[in-house]
Amino acid sequence: MQKTIKVEGMTCGHCEKAVKGALNEVDGVNEVEVDLETGKVTISAGEDVDMQVIEEAVEEQGYEVVSE
Amino acid sequence: MQKTIKVEGMTCGHCEKAVKGALNEVDGVNEVEVDLETGKVTISAGEDVDMQVIEEAVEEQGYEVVSE
Repeated sequence: MQKTIKVEGMTCGHCEKAVKGALNEVDGVNEVEVDLETGKVTISAGEDVDMQVIEEAVEEQGYEVVSE
Repeated sequence: MQKTIKVEGMTCGHCEKAVKGALNEVDGVNEVEVDLETGKVTISAGEDVDMQVIEEAVEEQGYEVVSE
């Protein structure tokens, strides 16, 4: 599956790296793409991932998921 | 001595950390304070530090010293 969420608060390459790193640690996630300008984060996973876990991973880094 | 420079491009806590970390590695630097909103970076050093080295350290992290 592939899912795109919108994340608020990412401002620079470090932010992108922090979110990417955290999401890549989530079970089932294979690839994460981040578009800094729009805040769109696209997650590719081999199986259904738990969106609750995704959201928590993003928030733990200090950013907010504003839409799923 | 204490010196305040202005740095452009720092947008978040990660940027602040990157600049602080790099400047703390410079010979003679004891303390670094960063004001993200204004971009002002205040460097406290026990001796005269080489401003060329300071500038290079900031730029190596991807930011620009716009005034010394």
